[in-house]
Amino acid sequence: MVTKKSYLNNTKKLERIPEKELRNVCFKFFQKMSLSNVNAKIISDTLIDNDLRGVYSHGIMRFPTLVRNIERKKINPKAEINIVKDFKSTALIDGNNGIGQLISCKAMDIAIKKAKFYGVSAVGVFHSNHSNSMATYCMKALKKDMIGFYMSTGSSNIMAPYGGYDAKLGNNPFGIAIPTGSMWKFPIVLDMACSKRAMGWIMLALKEGWKNIPKNFALDDRGNPTTDPKEAYNGTLLPFGEYKGYSIAIIVGVLGSVLTSAAIGEDFNNLDEESMSEQNIGHFMGAIDIGKFIQIDDFKKRIDKFIMYLKSSRKLKNVKKIYVPGEKEYETYEENIIKGIPIAPVTLESIKEVANNYSIKINF
Amino acid sequence: MVTKKSYLNNTKKLERIPEKELRNVCFKFFQKMSLSNVNAKIISDTLIDNDLRGVYSHGIMRFPTLVRNIERKKINPKAEINIVKDFKSTALIDGNNGIGQLISCKAMDIAIKKAKFYGVSAVGVFHSNHSNSMATYCMKALKKDMIGFYMSTGSSNIMAPYGGYDAKLGNNPFGIAIPTGSMWKFPIVLDMACSKRAMGWIMLALKEGWKNIPKNFALDDRGNPTTDPKEAYNGTLLPFGEYKGYSIAIIVGVLGSVLTSAAIGEDFNNLDEESMSEQNIGHFMGAIDIGKFIQIDDFKKRIDKFIMYLKSSRKLKNVKKIYVPGEKEYETYEENIIKGIPIAPVTLESIKEVANNYSIKINF
Repeated sequence: MVTKKSYLNNTKKLERIPEKELRNVCFKFFQKMSLSNVNAKIISDTLIDNDLRGVYSHGIMRFPTLVRNIERKKINPKAEINIVKDFKSTALIDGNNGIGQLISCKAMDIAIKKAKFYGVSAVGVFHSNHSNSMATYCMKALKKDMIGFYMSTGSSNIMAPYGGYDAKLGNNPFGIAIPTGSMWKFPIVLDMACSKRAMGWIMLALKEGWKNIPKNFALDDRGNPTTDPKEAYNGTLLPFGEYKGYSIAIIVGVLGSVLTSAAIGEDFNNLDEESMSEQNIGHFMGAIDIGKFIQIDDFKKRIDKFIMYLKSSRKLKNVKKIYVPGEKEYETYEENIIKGIPIAPVTLESIKEVANNYSIKINF
Repeated sequence: MVTKKSYLNNTKKLERIPEKELRNVCFKFFQKMSLSNVNAKIISDTLIDNDLRGVYSHGIMRFPTLVRNIERKKINPKAEINIVKDFKSTALIDGNNGIGQLISCKAMDIAIKKAKFYGVSAVGVFHSNHSNSMATYCMKALKKDMIGFYMSTGSSNIMAPYGGYDAKLGNNPFGIAIPTGSMWKFPIVLDMACSKRAMGWIMLALKEGWKNIPKNFALDDRGNPTTDPKEAYNGTLLPFGEYKGYSIAIIVGVLGSVLTSAAIGEDFNNLDEESMSEQNIGHFMGAIDIGKFIQIDDFKKRIDKFIMYLKSSRKLKNVKKIYVPGEKEYETYEENIIKGIPIAPVTLESIKEVANNYSIKINF
């Protein structure tokens, strides 16, 4: 993910646009694609909510590419999403090359229903597309007092196996959302990729003409460390935590795509704006019904106490605050909902172009 | 975990003892404690199998402490292990302060049965004790063509929250085992802690009198980086992958102990050889029945192909081989089963003492 800090520090001339305006452009576009209001809202909300949470790499920035893929029929926005295997607490879903967000939302709704009935659930998905941030789907479980988890094969093979320098693995992100109580204000929401930084961040660096990325994030095509975003783009990203992040990426790949019959490894077509090949991305998700293990009120008291205990740690020099997963995103949300969403010029231009092409009235 | 390399490189005068001899000492001891042969075998096997796999920090090295904890009744080897909540695909188990291995084996057997019937399962455990390596329990699922996962709160608060320097978090290990086919010889077995290195490794360094540990692994009690094993022991370990490993440790802690009503955070008693306090360690585990998603033969072909694809990567300078999780441990197994298990003098002395105290005949 492009985090708030790197985006705000590195991107020039950001303009803040009210979230409602951006939501409206997306919603109107999908209405014009004859999607139901419910589905148009799901896609708009998942994109803009990511921007509100400061996950700019998976927000409105992805909208113009989605528009283009629908226009040239690379993705079918009206695809039927079918359950092809329905067992007790598991299911396998064929996304039929539809829009990732719609597929993932439907799959997570099924996972939540199954967890309510059976206690825990696991739902696999194939023939899907990039579904943006993991957090979106995990967080659906929170309203039902459940823990939600979601993992996906990344949209391109961009990471080398540990010790190598061929891009053979996705960054294979995973997420989990856990409810908290009234003492601690935000749920725990973890959403991370297995590369140190996302390829979306390298792409942003390229689009925006940054000269350098920090060292230790990428190798060039000959296996040498590089700080040049173009060399990094043509090379490979490094996993977080060395062989540990590499190992987790393998596990996510196996659950997300080997188990679900989706594309992986040499059969995987990288996300390529020019190609018409279907990606056949796989996901693996589920929910755990907390009430089947412990009274929900008791759970919430216990997790709040644990969080406050962690946050009470003595802090290293120059550290102002001990964070827990998701906290920064909630803080950014509170800021962006008031100030508007900071948009890079290159993204703003693309959005205006879509609005113009589809006669969508905008106020920015 | 203490890996093969660090153990063999750093530990002086290792003596190789045949695995059968070590298994025999453990087995006989637990027989003398009036355990059933089945249970005596479970405990002996989990310990010695770890040594065979090169996970020396979780093998026979732990035996003398276990003996002592049984002798002084800190742990009850004959504890009843009760299912206190039994829902469809979930269960919660009270270990009643028994031996960790027996509790975890029983819980995983229940998880596997539930996964066969429901497709996926999740079993929580509280009132348990240190159960050694995660891999042991995950690998039980392999024989049933299932994926097994297991996580646990670490046995002591030894890691600081990211940005802090108070030991408030366990290293909270987790594991997963995944079957493979006939093209690739070993199953995928991941087993890792959220600290860069385990506290067991620091303890070994202290016992063996190593002068230094590598830098960037630990902070002293004032939050400064340290390479002194004693300062590290009194300070905190650093998480792998910075805030990512820290975040995963929180998630494992919540699933392993907040959800299961086990001890965590300020309520947690560190593993202390002198204390008589029950630890109330929590675990969270489960299994996924592969056949509910994809034909098992198809799965095995797909995972083998994926592994061979990763292993075919061009290699960085001085790298001889691309590994996948668990491969090194299987290689070590093949070596140790023939050559015997390398044992440090300090451990060997303790084992001989136990054998002597309980009149167990040994041939080493």
